[in-house]
This record gives sequence, C-alpha cells and structure tokens, in this order.
Amino acid sequence: MNSRRASPPPAGKSPAASASPWRARRRDREVKREAVIRAAARAFNRKGYHNTSLDDIAAALEVSKPTVYYYVTNKEHLLFQCFLAGVEPIRAAFREVQDQQAPARERLNAVLRHYGEAVASEFGWCMVRAEDQDLSPAMSRHIKTLKSEIDQGIRRLIRDGVQDGSIEPCDPKMTAFALAGALNWIAHWYREDQSLTGAEIAAVFVTIFEGGLRPRSASQVATRAPLRRRARISR
Amino acid sequence: MNSRRASPPPAGKSPAASASPWRARRRDREVKREAVIRAAARAFNRKGYHNTSLDDIAAALEVSKPTVYYYVTNKEHLLFQCFLAGVEPIRAAFREVQDQQAPARERLNAVLRHYGEAVASEFGWCMVRAEDQDLSPAMSRHIKTLKSEIDQGIRRLIRDGVQDGSIEPCDPKMTAFALAGALNWIAHWYREDQSLTGAEIAAVFVTIFEGGLRPRSASQVATRAPLRRRARISR
Repeated sequence: MNSRRASPPPAGKSPAASASPWRARRRDREVKREAVIRAAARAFNRKGYHNTSLDDIAAALEVSKPTVYYYVTNKEHLLFQCFLAGVEPIRAAFREVQDQQAPARERLNAVLRHYGEAVASEFGWCMVRAEDQDLSPAMSRHIKTLKSEIDQGIRRLIRDGVQDGSIEPCDPKMTAFALAGALNWIAHWYREDQSLTGAEIAAVFVTIFEGGLRPRSASQVATRAPLRRRARISR
Repeated sequence: MNSRRASPPPAGKSPAASASPWRARRRDREVKREAVIRAAARAFNRKGYHNTSLDDIAAALEVSKPTVYYYVTNKEHLLFQCFLAGVEPIRAAFREVQDQQAPARERLNAVLRHYGEAVASEFGWCMVRAEDQDLSPAMSRHIKTLKSEIDQGIRRLIRDGVQDGSIEPCDPKMTAFALAGALNWIAHWYREDQSLTGAEIAAVFVTIFEGGLRPRSASQVATRAPLRRRARISR
C-alpha cells in the first residue's frame, strides 16, 4: 500500500513512526511534516480536537512549538491535513481499480477494504468528524468535495456492478450510504489496541456486505451444524 | 408505534407537534415536557448543541425561560432526555419481539426498522452524539449502558438467527457493529426534507442487510435485464 502514497503519511499502524524523526537519520522536511500530522491525529484521537494544543503536539514530538509552526499554519490546518492523509488511500484505491477488468463488485470490494482500513487508522476520527464548525469555509468546502467524490465513486461502482451482473439490483445511493456508514462508524468503536487490525476488520465487513444476513441456498442446509467462522475474531 | 411509548415523545415526523402546546387544549405537564424535549432536539439539530441556549428553546415554544426550567434542570439534562426519547422506540422493539416465535432474522429486522426510524427522527443526532464531554459522568455512564444493551440485544438476535438457521453464520459482534454503524450514520446525512421518510429508509436498509451485494442464484440470471427497484427512491 505504501508504494501508492507519496505525500501524505500512510494510514495504518506503524509503531516506529511515533519516534521523533528529528532524531532519525533521514531528516528531510517531508518526513518531519508527516510526523507532525501523525502526532496531531493521535493527540486529537486521545484528547479531542478542542482539548489539544499545538504545545501538546510539540511535546509529543519533543520539539518546540515554533518548529511545529514551520510545518503547519495552525491547528485547523492540521485537522485538514489529517483528513487529507486519511482519505488519500481511498482515492488511490479508486485510481487503482479504474482500469481493471475485474467485475465491478470486486473493484468495489477493493475500494471498501482500503476505506475500512483508513477509517481504522489513526486518521479515522479526523476523516469522520473534520467537516463541521472547526474548519474554515474553504477547507470545509474542500472536504465536502472530496467526500462527495468518494460517495459518487462508490455509487458508480455499484451501478457498474448491477450492470455487469456482479451486484444484486439495488438503489446505488442508499446502498452507498449503508456501506459508507458502516465503515465510517468504525472510527467510533475501533481502538488501536483492538485484537483485529484495520485490514482484518475491513475484510470482515466486506464479507458481511457481500453475503447479507439471509442464508445462501447452499449454506442454508448446514445452518444448524456447528458454526463455522468467517474470520477469527476475539470478543 | 405510539401506543408503545408512554413517557418519552415519539420519534418520527409529526409537524403538528412543533406548535406550542401551551396554546393547546390538553395542557397537562407531560405533553409540555415532551414539547420542550422535542424543541430542544430540533434546536440542537439546527444550530448544534453548543450554539443552542435555553433562550432559543423557550423562544421556539413561545414561553419564558423559567417555564422551560420548570420541566428540565439544564441544557445537559435536555440532551440526555433527547437521547432517552430517541432510544426508547428501539428498546420497546426489543421488548415487543422478545416473546415472538418468528425466526430471529425477522425479529432482528423488526428491531432494525425501529432503529433506523429512530435515527432518522429529530432525536437521531442526539442519540448518535450524546456521549462525549457534554454530559456529566453519571449521564454518560447511563447512556453507555443503554447503548451497550442495544448492542448486546442485536448480537443476541444475530446469534439466535445463526442458531435457528435464519441468518448466515457470521461473527455476531462485527455484524452488529456493521448494521448499527450503517443505521447510526443516517443521522449524518438525513434531513427532514428528504423525499423518503425514516421508515422508508429503514426498510431499504434492512433489504440491503438481508440480501447482500452478491447476487442470489435466482436473480443472477436476470441481472442484465432492466433494473428492478427494491424501493422507489428519488435522487
């Protein structure tokens, strides 16, 4: 996944990334900017946006506040950058599947897996909440545009799937809302110490979306046999 | 539905309810208390919790602020009451299906329909957001307990459905998160001027959850025929 993302910090767990890059050998500006954004996302998750100061973020990175200001304009700008870092893997997934010949349901599933993984990443909370009064009108518009692009992309893949026969006929708008809602909500319950990774949760969700609750004819015969698990889940 | 709910104001659209009951003939305390809670929910939806004052709510009801204080202690208490009013139809649905003999998937669907309708009601936003730092620790704990009861109730119905063969074997915890997430997210996109009612949206969502994206063997043959809609949806 990392190969697809040049600029924004990659979503997902990377424990080493929490170490201050001012101590690391590779001291280029981009790595430091990414570290600032990642530290901000973690602080927003932990303390909430309003309760986090640039001082907190500087302290987490073991640098001075002016150093943080060298990379970002203000806290609002940081929230915006966290949002961009979160949605970039989803946008990259759309680009990746665009020219693939696979049935649309498979292409949709690939996007949804990246989507779920992104929401379960440290940027998930910012992705899901960075829209309201915390942002300038210009940033808010930008975010709405990107969210709308993602929504329209999902609807298009659903329409294509109904067309190519890989997706059960359905209402693309409502179906896109249901899928995105289930995935967005991951940000409300997922914690990094969860036993499943973001990728594993995303895979389980895609299985649920695909199969539906009503038993398929083949499995219906076996429904009273001992449960077979679709994925190993601890509770 | 109204017959099931005695105390909290019923979720769902009822345009007449916005008229001040101080002018109505039936002037009992309960009706007025419900009107205060409903007016608060509408104000929180429109202006956000932090930007709404008890003055705004009093003005919407055309009464004085002391009159509002006669029914509720403070704004925090109002948010809490809005949450309770929102979840009550879901709790009532659980009670209603408890002793039914129908397959568990049908009982689950009945609960999910009430759930979706509640989130699309004027209390939806309060239900979904009333948990964080806006509430006292005691209220917050109470809300967490009620949310957990609903979550556990959904998981139990899923387990029962896998057991009685009406639900495809799945992970109950992850499936409950996916279903509730999709429904909770309705509060983020649904507006009262939407062309579909809350009940219609809930019904479409239940159809999506039940069927899944992957075509069923019977419909697979016909997937390239002109689309048949599961529900009439305007876009």
